[in-house]
This record gives sequence, structure tokens and C-alpha cells, in this order.
Amino acid sequence: RIQLRKNGQILGLVSRRLASTTPKSDAQNSLAFREDFSTRHIGINQQQETEMLKTLNLKSLDELVVKTVPENIRLNRDLNLSEPLTEQEMLEYAKNLASENQIFRSFIGLGYHNCHMPPVILRNIFENPGWVTQYTPYQAELSQGRLESLLNFQTMVCDLTGFDIANASLLDEGTAAAEAMTLCSRNNKRRKFLISDRVHPQTIDVVKTRAEPLRIEVKVQNLNDMKFDSKDVTGFLFQYPDTDGSLLNLETIVKNAKDYGTVPVAATDLLSLCLIKSPRELGAEIALGNAQRFGVPLGFGGPHAAFFAATDKFKRDMPGRIIGVSRDSNGKPAMRLTLQTREQHIRQDKATSNICTAQALLANISAFYAVYYGPEGLKKKANHAHLHTLVLAEGLKQANNQVLNENFFDTIKVKPTLSISEIRKRAEEKKINLRYFEDNLHVGISLDDTVTSKDLNDLFEIFNSNENFEQVVKRVNLNELKSNLNSNENLFRRESNYLQHPVFNTYHSEALLVRYMKMLENKDVSLVHSMIPLGSCTMKLNSTTELIPVSWPEFASIHPFVPPNQVKGYHKMFDELARDLCEITGYDKISFQPNSGAQGEYAGLRAIMQYLIANEKGDRRVCLIPTSAHGTNPASAAMAGMKIHKVNVLKNGTIDMNHLSELAKKYEKNLACAMVTYPSTYGVFESKIVEMCQIIHDHGGQVYLDGANLNAQVGLCRPGDYGSDVSHLNLHKTFCIPHGGGGPGMGPIGVKKHLAPYLPSHPLVDIPGVNRSDSFGSCSAGPFGSSSILPISWSYIKMMGSRGLQRATKVAILNSNYMMKRLEKAYNVNYVGEHGFAAHEFIINADFKSSANIEAIDIAKRLQDYGFHSPTVSWPVHGALMIEPTESESKDELDRLCDALLSIREEIRKIEVGEWDRVNNPLKNAPHTQEVCVNTNWNRPYTREVAAYPIGYIKPESKMWPTCGRVDDSYGDKNLVVKRN
Amino acid sequence: RIQLRKNGQILGLVSRRLASTTPKSDAQNSLAFREDFSTRHIGINQQQETEMLKTLNLKSLDELVVKTVPENIRLNRDLNLSEPLTEQEMLEYAKNLASENQIFRSFIGLGYHNCHMPPVILRNIFENPGWVTQYTPYQAELSQGRLESLLNFQTMVCDLTGFDIANASLLDEGTAAAEAMTLCSRNNKRRKFLISDRVHPQTIDVVKTRAEPLRIEVKVQNLNDMKFDSKDVTGFLFQYPDTDGSLLNLETIVKNAKDYGTVPVAATDLLSLCLIKSPRELGAEIALGNAQRFGVPLGFGGPHAAFFAATDKFKRDMPGRIIGVSRDSNGKPAMRLTLQTREQHIRQDKATSNICTAQALLANISAFYAVYYGPEGLKKKANHAHLHTLVLAEGLKQANNQVLNENFFDTIKVKPTLSISEIRKRAEEKKINLRYFEDNLHVGISLDDTVTSKDLNDLFEIFNSNENFEQVVKRVNLNELKSNLNSNENLFRRESNYLQHPVFNTYHSEALLVRYMKMLENKDVSLVHSMIPLGSCTMKLNSTTELIPVSWPEFASIHPFVPPNQVKGYHKMFDELARDLCEITGYDKISFQPNSGAQGEYAGLRAIMQYLIANEKGDRRVCLIPTSAHGTNPASAAMAGMKIHKVNVLKNGTIDMNHLSELAKKYEKNLACAMVTYPSTYGVFESKIVEMCQIIHDHGGQVYLDGANLNAQVGLCRPGDYGSDVSHLNLHKTFCIPHGGGGPGMGPIGVKKHLAPYLPSHPLVDIPGVNRSDSFGSCSAGPFGSSSILPISWSYIKMMGSRGLQRATKVAILNSNYMMKRLEKAYNVNYVGEHGFAAHEFIINADFKSSANIEAIDIAKRLQDYGFHSPTVSWPVHGALMIEPTESESKDELDRLCDALLSIREEIRKIEVGEWDRVNNPLKNAPHTQEVCVNTNWNRPYTREVAAYPIGYIKPESKMWPTCGRVDDSYGDKNLVVKRN
Repeated sequence: RIQLRKNGQILGLVSRRLASTTPKSDAQNSLAFREDFSTRHIGINQQQETEMLKTLNLKSLDELVVKTVPENIRLNRDLNLSEPLTEQEMLEYAKNLASENQIFRSFIGLGYHNCHMPPVILRNIFENPGWVTQYTPYQAELSQGRLESLLNFQTMVCDLTGFDIANASLLDEGTAAAEAMTLCSRNNKRRKFLISDRVHPQTIDVVKTRAEPLRIEVKVQNLNDMKFDSKDVTGFLFQYPDTDGSLLNLETIVKNAKDYGTVPVAATDLLSLCLIKSPRELGAEIALGNAQRFGVPLGFGGPHAAFFAATDKFKRDMPGRIIGVSRDSNGKPAMRLTLQTREQHIRQDKATSNICTAQALLANISAFYAVYYGPEGLKKKANHAHLHTLVLAEGLKQANNQVLNENFFDTIKVKPTLSISEIRKRAEEKKINLRYFEDNLHVGISLDDTVTSKDLNDLFEIFNSNENFEQVVKRVNLNELKSNLNSNENLFRRESNYLQHPVFNTYHSEALLVRYMKMLENKDVSLVHSMIPLGSCTMKLNSTTELIPVSWPEFASIHPFVPPNQVKGYHKMFDELARDLCEITGYDKISFQPNSGAQGEYAGLRAIMQYLIANEKGDRRVCLIPTSAHGTNPASAAMAGMKIHKVNVLKNGTIDMNHLSELAKKYEKNLACAMVTYPSTYGVFESKIVEMCQIIHDHGGQVYLDGANLNAQVGLCRPGDYGSDVSHLNLHKTFCIPHGGGGPGMGPIGVKKHLAPYLPSHPLVDIPGVNRSDSFGSCSAGPFGSSSILPISWSYIKMMGSRGLQRATKVAILNSNYMMKRLEKAYNVNYVGEHGFAAHEFIINADFKSSANIEAIDIAKRLQDYGFHSPTVSWPVHGALMIEPTESESKDELDRLCDALLSIREEIRKIEVGEWDRVNNPLKNAPHTQEVCVNTNWNRPYTREVAAYPIGYIKPESKMWPTCGRVDDSYGDKNLVVKRN
Repeated sequence: RIQLRKNGQILGLVSRRLASTTPKSDAQNSLAFREDFSTRHIGINQQQETEMLKTLNLKSLDELVVKTVPENIRLNRDLNLSEPLTEQEMLEYAKNLASENQIFRSFIGLGYHNCHMPPVILRNIFENPGWVTQYTPYQAELSQGRLESLLNFQTMVCDLTGFDIANASLLDEGTAAAEAMTLCSRNNKRRKFLISDRVHPQTIDVVKTRAEPLRIEVKVQNLNDMKFDSKDVTGFLFQYPDTDGSLLNLETIVKNAKDYGTVPVAATDLLSLCLIKSPRELGAEIALGNAQRFGVPLGFGGPHAAFFAATDKFKRDMPGRIIGVSRDSNGKPAMRLTLQTREQHIRQDKATSNICTAQALLANISAFYAVYYGPEGLKKKANHAHLHTLVLAEGLKQANNQVLNENFFDTIKVKPTLSISEIRKRAEEKKINLRYFEDNLHVGISLDDTVTSKDLNDLFEIFNSNENFEQVVKRVNLNELKSNLNSNENLFRRESNYLQHPVFNTYHSEALLVRYMKMLENKDVSLVHSMIPLGSCTMKLNSTTELIPVSWPEFASIHPFVPPNQVKGYHKMFDELARDLCEITGYDKISFQPNSGAQGEYAGLRAIMQYLIANEKGDRRVCLIPTSAHGTNPASAAMAGMKIHKVNVLKNGTIDMNHLSELAKKYEKNLACAMVTYPSTYGVFESKIVEMCQIIHDHGGQVYLDGANLNAQVGLCRPGDYGSDVSHLNLHKTFCIPHGGGGPGMGPIGVKKHLAPYLPSHPLVDIPGVNRSDSFGSCSAGPFGSSSILPISWSYIKMMGSRGLQRATKVAILNSNYMMKRLEKAYNVNYVGEHGFAAHEFIINADFKSSANIEAIDIAKRLQDYGFHSPTVSWPVHGALMIEPTESESKDELDRLCDALLSIREEIRKIEVGEWDRVNNPLKNAPHTQEVCVNTNWNRPYTREVAAYPIGYIKPESKMWPTCGRVDDSYGDKNLVVKRN
């Protein structure tokens, strides 16, 4: 109690009061005003609910549930969750858990480093809903702000690595390395990949795991032992500087590899590249790594933005999202996601990779960090880390500790005079973490740009040095030290320039940076402006209170590989969240390792395969996937080594049960699993889901239920109950992690008991309940994925409670059906359940090509003039819009969007009847920019007002303008520009 | 050290590293990259400095100083301040100080209550530079967002108090009460004011202090003893509910007072008014109080927004800023500051009051709090507090504690069974603060809407009750309890509605509130958009890092009247800040009590008077003030009981030394002081400042140096050195406290030793070094003013250090002179120093009435089309603009503003030569709204582009639009509307 109070004091303004998490007595309930968070989260109130039910001719929310969710899967009870906490109580409880984490100083390295996030970035980006709640920039005209920032990120990566092409982030360094392997293999069609034994172990493990089902042979070797002359090596991966901290002369081996057609791949470190030669200068053809140390908190493993850069020849085959400069309808430069044709929704199992989500928010933070420090500031930071490491090495050597590195940047490997156990004891007394090598003989020490002389003195004490920082510096030749990597003679010295673009050389005062960030922010639509009705993406409220703990250092300032006893708070939270998610889904165990939805799919499928192999059914590799599935499903299945067969979908959108049975029967011997999305991607609770699962099970297969649409199920039905064996849970959809403009996401998986032993493991950290020998391996670099954002989902469940969550689901379905009802006379709705109701989302036909020359994309762009981000366009149904309002939107907001769509339908009618021209009309010309509307030369056959203020509620004083005209996709794909120049 | 580390952990993301505040050794400095905060704060870099100096034909900044600052006042040494800290180091040091404050649960009451600031308001308003860095809404067209929010505040106050007129906040409840007294006196011309002895003691003290020099007789009496039949009582002030918590039947006395022409004034509590009759219903004619408990942290005394409401008859005589609805040039409703004719810059010593700054940011927070909770939510909160207090009283009575109140809301006065010292001992063990009455017999307990059953149990234990919360509730009749203030029979029960406007009944989900706040924010120009070159207002950078500690509960969650041993951290910070400010100004002692610049003036003048009285020179009451002074100077002097005589100013803007001498001589016997602004309000370092001070001293007077322009002096010269005896320091100008859209401000005063004994005291809290018997009394309700924002100024000094501060001053002067140089060919500059240089600001003539029919206001409004907030208009020189760029602006930003002004001059030329019409032109029609520009009916003799994008850098994709046309001031003054309807 006293402990709680004590912690209660450090919560921020919101914290004077102590939270009791025990249930309240009647007396208390009777006298106390307990604020119900669910009423803040859910957008409609009781009165609006009544009105909306009336529109639907329903008496109650329960009747709606009866008419939407099949009876044989309905839960019909409350979820067994703890009583809902108020926002205050949750914050205090979270702080209590946080206080059970211990913040040691980390010198562990291994790709994760201490850094300071400048407060100006903390408050204006990381804690700012304007940057945090944006969607992926698919609607480029309303996204030019973050597109520019992501282009800055790509420019920064290109400059520092020396390459011409970079993407706008991958999930982590491990998966980036795996993507590099497959990129090499796609490029030269070889299937053997070499990894230096001086690559970070977690990277090696992810790559090996990824290689296995793809039948790529991976060898981990000493660089000196590598041979390429057999011409069958697709690529080789080395760490630069290597995992021990050493800079080795690699020019010969790199040249040798290239001579035999092997692609040299460098896993590298951005800060070091400010001082040492770029990977490109070294001869590498691909570079990757983690941008974390550019201002992003350690976060016990993530989220951070990984980067990926390559030579020009790989440009059309790069994994992940790439921002490109194209031109808009007015002929001006405009940015957008480029080369989307590589993505899963087009190429399905032939896609470049299954990766959808990027780490946009974190990439933006790193980009702004580089913008704020510029080349000079970053170089100073690199020198700070480097010079302190030189002093450290000198001081350790003096005390007869052996430093194994000849050349290094900020990390050294030491064979200490004292025993490792003594070193460890001394370090832990000082709350310092070091890297302890498995041989029990060596210690790794990795410094950074935040290190102080006090830190060095502590390290000297630990290693029994009798000198202190001052004395070491006095003893050695300072100028010689300082000239090290900066010396002309140094082989590794970087001579090429970087970050010369004005964007990295202008915004160096806080006022300038803030204005730059704000100018970009104000170009972009986010949830602070209006609803973002993205079907299948569940853009619900990301409440401030849920986001607050993420900034706490007890969650943010922890290295992913610390001993478990330092992260008891994290583990308690994981346990509670896992328990709650199991109760919500009906599964038995959760793995938090997958750090995106696609990763979750992959991990789930790998767990299935591993289970089959363990049960000697390893030849079961067939995966049945409905044609209506999200393209990531087949892409993930392909990566898991499965053979995909497509199940037909009937005209009404439901799975063709006959075809399913047929295929299940046909592949009876080889059936591994089926992947089903539920409610279906068409927004329908298919009534035969139980039978479907049964058919698969009857034929020896497992059921993978895609959790993308879990927001329609929470509290109403549970996948684990009606037959599914495994699902991934998009915490960034159903459980409130904000989309961050295109990431972070989190995709933990839930499994039934029989699959539990096969969940992801980690080479450096023990995962409770998982044996490495049983597990399929690791799918992320961090043991628990992007741990630091898990408090968001945890707190959402804690504050909503069973009733709140259930009501949220019902209201999500209500909102969807209410909108559908309002729109159905104007737009065709083809896909509904048996009783004529949709689930939490619905699809309207938006193809008026024949009648009015209008396509879905025209409606999407015209919606921007109405102030709205478009719903999902042409997926899963071509020419349609998929609308998901979520429970967080108010009736007024739903009505506004309905009014917009009805008004647009009326506009289409004007074209249909010839009132408006079929080409030169507001839809085809949409979106309309200010530049077009405030222009003397207006020569369109409609007025400026029709263009800019097409409906009463769009007012000049609060209009959100698209900042460019419609962007030309094919021009940009043809003329690829991915950095600023 | 361990302590530091421990605290270091709770700083937020920015905090992994330990700060050492000791100077660094050469070795460290040589190897370490120490980030220099001053380079983030100051907008120009070395290269730009060189360019700008070249423009001015100067070789160095030092040469600039030589040419601007008179030789005989130059400091010529570094200030003796501690070495500058980095942002990280400052945060850790601040956290260390913070940890020396202890957060007790406060049940003290006395007008300050615990409350929770909703996190959504915390992050989106309180911590959001878009709301925090706005200027006072003088440019209404770029301020409609916060004007609407402030109108919500006024509406909320009107509704809850029952009155028709309210202002948009005063500084605190004490000064609001003092303003009420003078309002009464102005109204009925009487000079006797009665105060109930059940008014909060700090309020009584402020009113008494204020009354003294105004020769208003104040009597503190028991309500029953009050007599009005002599018809000489101007007004009487009562607390409702009273300071002991009681609700008394006041109808008779109120009626009685009014019968004899006495104005009844209620000091009241907004939360209680949700349950009890409004002051208006009670018969009062004025109501005032503190809106703090509507979501604003205690902050050890402030800042909070005080409110002030009155019946219609007082409407043209109200103190403070009032938001009114008028109409714009397009005939649409538009808001603005109304009845400005009452303000000091017009009426000087005849002004309604000397108050300039309001508490806009805090008023906005309270308004959004009411918007978010609405009438129902607020009523529930009121009931929560009330019902818990009823249970508390029951439980205490059962243990034979005597509860003195018959009717009460949330506060009771208790005569305990145990001794007061025992009660205090027990309470402090539980970290609970109570109100201990001076009689050593009674204890006050004030509950609030955050109180829990656990709190009550603790209180029961303290008071030796053997029942707990559950048992008390079980024993008493719950329904009876609950019906108390809600019962029909209850005399005090409120029956009238409040907060029925839709704005208080719509935004109750977080998504809705966030969008409403963002929509308003985006209407307003703040420092996140562009420079705000307000002469005399020093709109410099308010860095994120400086603002971070303000949210910490160790500063925010502390009641102003806690015992000193609970606020050691605060006192250490005050001591350090006072020491630094003394070093900067050359004074000997600082008082932090004045919570605005005007309060500082008042306090300084009162200290002078008190000094004179103590030295038997009380008849010295003449105050000499140059005609160029800010109107607040004479207004403050009048309030301090002085006789103002104006000193002429020469055509070149300098004080007429002959006239000064003449007047000093003439009033030799009665001279109290002179008030001088330095550099002068004309932006000039007058060369004869030393002589001026000497003249005043020679004639027995004191020198009050207005500190508004201290930003031109820091590190270059010190008022205390060259002859001044006292100054106020606008911490919200020179020392980085943000303007908050019109407050908070802070106006501590520095004095020479001889004035130190006469500084402000406080009736409840001992001020170190001040005896109540010597002091002139108290000028604010809080002992140390708005304490919780002092960390901002403290941290600014800590991070800048001597060199940084000095460079900031030089650059402020450089920026000003650079701009002047660029503008001087186009605009007349009349006021410069001997060598032709301005100080940190300068004045350009903007009156082209005769040549082009263009006035300064037209240029100001036209600047909005160029994306700029206008400089100060027509003050101190009519028809002129006063420009103060500050050191935080970059050369590019200065050039942008210069380019705008030069372009406008060219536009004026077009009018002059007849190219443009003298009436229908872009200047007269400015500002241009979107509504006007995106309009089919454009019939102006210039293009839309000229209207909206008058210069190359104003781009459609980032244009900041005024959201209404030019606002009609006189229409609004004539048709006063001050609330939403």
C-alpha cells in the first residue's frame, strides 16, 4: 500500500489518488462516482444507440447480435476479466508494475544502444496524436507530411550506407537480414547463404529460422573460411562493425564474393557509419540494420525502425514499403508509396515478402533525430562514443584485461583478469549490464553517445583497473586517441560526405524543428481530424491514457536481453495480458514475439508445421486459403514452406463449402491447414464456420483463423471455442495500439494447447514455457516483439472490462449496420449475413464505370474534398469500398460520412443523367487543392464551392485540404526517386 | 549518488543518464560531446551572425554592444552563474530537487482542491505547444480557436454562478475579491467594504492590502454584526460555502444589504454550485472564485484561473479581459476581446484595474474540463465529494468529535476529541495534511471528487473513530444521506439548470473531444507556426525541456499552504532562481509572490511606499512616469495610492531630461519614485539612464525600473548597478514562461537591500526573510505566486549559463537591428540610440493615411495574409508598429517577415501612385479568408492570388488562414454578448 502510494506520486499530473484494484463494495459504489472509461472509448451514447437501433428496426443490441453472430458460436456469458479500472486506477496499477522493472545501465550492445530522445521530439512526435494516429499513407494526397519525413528517413539511410535505394523501414534487424537473404536468392536464384559467425546471434537465428522452410541452406562460418568459388552462394551476411565490436578489413572477401556472383550483405550500425567507410564503399551491395539508436527508446526490444538499403539493381525487388517521388495531377512533385505492385495484395504468394506493416512512427523519429542533429551533430555523437571506447580500452588493458579488438568503433570484447562471475557480481552491484559470452571467458562492452566519465570509472572499478578516467586520459596521448578513426591513415576512416541535403542542415534550433514538424503534421489527416473508416484496419480510439505508460522509462529504457529478474514488471504484465487474451479468444497460450500481423501469420503457420513435423506429419504442407483472403495469407504460407490451394468464394461472399470439402478431401494426405478470416474479409459472420473448421480437422488439418477481424468478436464468440487452432491478434487493430502512420504493429499469436510447445523461442532469452528444441525458432530479433507498446493493449482491456469490451463489439457492429442501412439505397451492398446484417464492416459497390465513367478510386479521392480519408478501396472486392467505422465513432461522425457518400452518389447521378461531364467533373478531378481553387484561372464546368465545400459541414474555417492533386502512380513507378536531392 | 540515479529513472524517456552538475575537467571536455542548449534556443548560427553583422557594417557582436549599450552601464564581465547544463542534465537535476518535495494527501481546502486533469487534456492542451505558446488574442482573426474556448469558460462561469457577465479569468481568488471591492466602489462611490470573518484568510489579506492605499476602509466582521443602514457600505464579501465549509442562510442579509445600496459579493466554489443555489439566486450581484478544481493542478499555489461574474449593470466596468461576440467584415459572428477601452493602455491611471495578463491557458483547461464532463458528469463529481463528506461527518461524530457545521458541501470544521497535536502527529504519519485553525482547537477537513473510502478510513483512524467507511455507511440511512443537498426540502438545493449549451453536452467521448480541441487549435497562430514579433512581449522559444518538469506531480500536486518541510525542493529551486536573478539584475532580494507583471509593478511600488512610511516619509507619494510608459505603470501607481505626474518625451523618443529635473525639483518634498522602462518603450538604450536615476535619488525618490525589456540587458548591464531600486521581472517574457494565449505570467520583483524588508508577506505561510509587520501585506493568494511555472525560468538559466544568456541578449539586439536595417528604407524609423542602433526591438512608422489611406491596423491585418501575427500596433507610438524578433528566431524567419513588410510597402506604393484603389484594395480588405477567396463571386479589383498568396513563400499547401474577416470592434462593444447561446 505504501509502495503503491509512493509510486502513485510519479505518474504525472493525473495521479494524486491511489487506485484500488479490488472490487468495490455496494456502499462505495453507491456513493462514489466511478468514471467509466468505456463511455469515453465508445463514441455513441445510450440515446443515440436507441435511435440507431430504431433505424435498423431492432429492439436491442442483443437482438443485433442474435441476427449477426451464428447461434452455434455465441459465447453467451461475460468474459472472465478483472473489474474495469478507471483511467486513474489503471495508471497507478501500471506504475506499480513498472516499478518492478529495474533500469540498469546497459553496455550490452548487440544492436541495441542507449540514446536520448530529444524532448522536442518526445512531445511533438512520440506523444502527439497528430503523428501517432495516422494511417498508412495509402491516400497520398492527405499524407504528404509523413511521406516527406519518411523520404528523409530513406535519404538518411541512403547517405549513411552509401546506397541509392532504401525503404521506409522494416520490423527489426533480424527480419531485415532474412529479407536480404531472400532478396539475394530471388536475384541470383541460388539457395545457399553464408553468415559470418560474428553476426549478432539473434539475427543469425531469425535468418536460419526463415531459411528452413524456404529450403535455403544457411551456413554460419568464420569469414576466413568462406568460399564462393562454387558459384552457388546467393549472398553472405557480415556484421559491420561485427558483433564483438571489431572492424575487420573485408575488402578482399567482399571482392572475392562479388567475383563469383555472391551478394555481400552488411548488417551495420548507423552511428558508426558517421566515422567509418560506408558499406557501399566497402563493396557491399545490401546494407541493413536498426535505426533505434537515432533517438528511439530501447523498449525491451521494440518497436524500432530497421532500415534496408541496396544498390540500384535491386530496386524493383526490395522488401517493405518504399516512398517515391512522383507527380500530381497538376504536374508538381508529390510523394507516395511506390512500387506497390510488389505487395501481397497484388502478388499474393508470389509477393516480395509478407511484410505489410512498417515502423513508420519510429522511422519518423529517427529521421527527425538526424534532421535535428545534422551531419555535424551526429559525427560528434559518434566521436563521443568512439573516444570513450578508446579510453575504456586503454584503461582496461592497463589492468591486464585483454582487449581482443584491434580496430573498433564503440564496442570491445574483453578477456578480463577477474573471473566472469566476479565481474558480473561487481557489475550488478553497480546496476550495470554487460554482455557475457557463452564461453564464460569473455565480456562485451558497448558504449554509446550518452556515456559519461562516471560510467567509465565504474567500468574501471569493475575490471579492477586502478586508474580512473582522468588518469587514463592523462596517460595516453589524447591527440593520438582522437585521431584514431578520424586519422587520414586509418583504413576504416570515412571520407565521403553524408546528409548534405538542406533538410539535415537547417532545422537545428528548436523553434525551426517544431515548425517543420508542425507544418508536416498539418498536411496529414489523422484521427484527430475525422474518422478513418478503413475496412479491415479498425482505426479505433487510441486513448491518451493507454499511451502514457509507453513513455515511462521503466518500460522504455530496458535492453531486450537483460536478465529476467530485472523485468518482473514486464513479465507480470505479459502474463496478465496473455491471460486476458486467452480468455477473449479461447486459446491456451500466447506468444508475444511476432511484431506485426504478418509475422503473426508466419509464426502461427510455422508453429503448425513444427507441430506436424513433431508428430511425423511433416509432409502435410498444403494450405487452403479462400480467394477472398488478404494477400498476406498466401504470402505468409509460402514463406512457411506451404503449398497454397485456393478455395472458391460464392457470389454472396461466403466460402464455397463444397469446394472446401472437395479440396480437403483431395489433399487429405497432405493437408496442413486452412487459413480463414472471420468474420470474413467481406464483413460477414459466415454461418458455417464451425462446419468449416470441422471439415479441416476431419481431414487432418489445422485451422489458422486470421485475427484481423477480431473486433467483431470480442465478448461475443471465441475462435478457440468454435474450432480454430491458432490466430494472430492485430493489437494495432482490436487492441488500440495506434497505427503510427504505418506502424508499429504487434501480432502476437494465440494457440490451442497442442501447438503451445512449438511457439517462437529466442537464442539469447528464455521464453517461459517454450523449449528451444521444440520451437520452430525465432521470428523477431526481440524475444517478446515490440514489448514497449504492449501496455497499450493491456490497459485497454483493464479499463474496459468484460462489459465494456462486449459493448464495444456490439457498437462496432451497430455502427457498421447503421451506416450500411443509410447507404444501401444509394450503393449496392452484396455481402451480408443470413439475416441481412453485416459484421463490423461492410462493402459497397463503388463501380459506376459504365453508367458514369466513375470508379471506386474517384469516389475515394472525392471523399478527400469532403474531409474524409477514404475507406479501403478495391479490396477485397475490386471496384468496391470497404467501410469499418469502429465503436469509437459518434453517430454524428457516422452521419457525416454517410452524408458525404450519399452526396457523392448524387454527384454520380448528375454524370449519369448528363448534367455533369463524364470527364471534366468534380469526381474525376478530385481531390481539389487550394492551389486549384484559389486561382484566377478557373475554367471548370462547376464552381469552386462545389469543388472545395461540397457539403454543408465542410466550412472554410476548418477545412482540411489535400496538399497535392491526385498522384500519378505509374509515373512514379517508372521514374523511381526514393531520396531527396 | 544512488538517490540521484533512482530519481533519474523517473524522468521520462530522456533520462537514462546521470547528470553531473560539477564542472567538467579538460579531459572530459576534450572527449565528450556536450550538447549546448543555447544553440537550440538561439535561432541563428555563427555563419548567419557573420552575414547579419556584415549587413550592419559591424565586425562583431561586441561592437554591436558597444554601439548600443551606454558605456557607463556596461557590465563587462561574465555573470557568476553555474556552468550550463545540457537538457538531460537539467532534467535530472530538476528531478533531484523535485524529489525533495513530499506529496501529502491534502484535505486543507481554503480554496484549493485535489482534482484529476484528464490525460486527454494533459497531453493535448497543457503539454501541447499549439495551445501553450499562443499570444494574447489581440489579433482576433488568427485567434478564433482559443476565443471560442474562453467564451466557453465565460459561459460556464455565467451558468454556474447564475450571472450574465463573466470575464475570461483573473489571477487568483484573492485579487479577484480585491477587484470586486474596487468595482463596488467605482459603482456606488462609497469607500467602506465589509468582509465576513468566514472568508478565506488569504483573500481577506489581499483585499485589505489592496484597500489601504486606495483609502477604502475594510472591516472584517461576523455576518450577524454587519450593518448597512448607514448607506456608506460599498459592498460586502462573503464566502459561499464559507471557509469553514458551512452553508448559511444568507437571504436576509443579502436583501438587507441591497436595500441600502450595498453590493453583495460572493466568493464561491464552482463544484459546489452544481448542487447548491447559485450566488445570483441567493441575491448576490458579484461572484468570484478559483476555477482550479476544474482540472488544474494545485501547483503549490498556481497558476490557476480565477473567475469573476456579475450582474448586467456592471458590464462596462468589469476588470480583466472579456471575450465578446461581434461580427466580421463579412457580417458573420466573430469573437474578440471586447470593451478594450477600459484597459490601461487607453485609460492609464484611470483604468478599471492594472491587470493585463489573464490565466488563459488555465481557463481553457477548466473550460475543456466542463466540456468533457458536462453538467451530468460535474454533478456526479459534486455528489461524490458531498456524499463522502456526509459520511465523514457521521463517522467523526460517532467518535465524539464535534462537527461544527450544520449544512455543508465538501468541507467541515471539527473540534476533535484528541488534542490537535495528536491529530497532527497521526495525520502526518499517514502523509495527510489538514487545516489546523489558529485557535489550536479546531481542524478543517475538505474533501473533493477524488476522495476514496480508503481516505475516509485513514481520517477515521486519525480522529480515533472505531468505525470504518463500510460500517458508517451501513449505520446511517444511505438514502437520507444521498437526498441531503439533492432533496427538495433542502434550502440550499440548486434547482436551476446549468451548462445546457450543446458544447457542454456533445464532446463526451475522447475522439470527439480531441477533434474539437484540434479544430480550435488549428484556427490559431502560435509559435509552432511562425515568429510572433510582438514588441515589448518577447515571444521567444519556450523549449520543451523547460516545460517538462511543470507536469511532474512533485511540483504540480502540492497545496500552497503545506508546511515548509514538505517543499524543500521548491525552496531550493526558489533560492537558486532568486540567486541567479539577483546576479542577472544586480538586486539583493527577490519576491516571487507577484503572479503577473502588473502585480509586480504594484508590489514594487507598495514596497517603496512601505519603505518610505517606515522611514517617516509617508507623505512622499508623487510618482513620475514618462508619457512613453506602458499604461500599466500609471494604473499600478494609482492603485498603490500614488499621484502620477507625467514626464515629457522628446521627439527622438528619449525622456526630456530637463522636464524630469524640473519635476523632480518641483516635487522634491513629495517625490516617492520614478518609473522608467529600460531600454525605453521606444526600444532605445537611453544614454542618460544613470543620470536619470541620479536625479531621482538626489531628490529623495526611489527608482522603479520596469523589467519588461530585460531581454535587452541580461549579461550586458544590470538595473541594480546603474541606479534602480526595484524592478519586476516578466518571467513570461525574458525567462521563457510561455504566454499560454494570454497567461499565465509571473512577475517577481527584485529589490535593493533597503527595500527587502518591505516585500510581500502572506497571512498563512512564512516567507523567508520577511516579517509580516514590516511587509506591505500580500498581493497574491499564493505565498510564492504561480510557483509551479518557476521551474521553467530556473531551467532556462541553468541550461543557458552566463555565456549563453549573454549571447542570447546580443543576438536579440542583432536580430532587431538587422530587421531595422532591412526595413529602414521602406519605413521610417524614428527612435534609435546615439549611434543609430536600436535595442532588442524597434518601431517603424506605419501611418500612410494621407498618402494612401492606409493605417497601421491595415498593415497588421494584411500581415495575416502573409502568414504573420502582427507586431505590436500603435503602441507606444500611435500609427506605428513595434517589432521585437527575440534571439530565438532564425535569419530566414526574420527575412521572411522583412520580405512581407517590404512587399506590403510596395502594395502601399501602388495605392499611393493610384495603381490600386484607395478603399477597395488588399490592405483595406485584409485579412482575406478562405470563404472570400474560394468564392465564385469574386469582384475585387485584384486577384485571389494577390489576396491569399501575396508572396512566394506563402504556399497553398501550408498556408495558415485567418478564419474570419476583420472583426468589427465597435459593433461588439455596442452589442455585448459574452456567452454562448
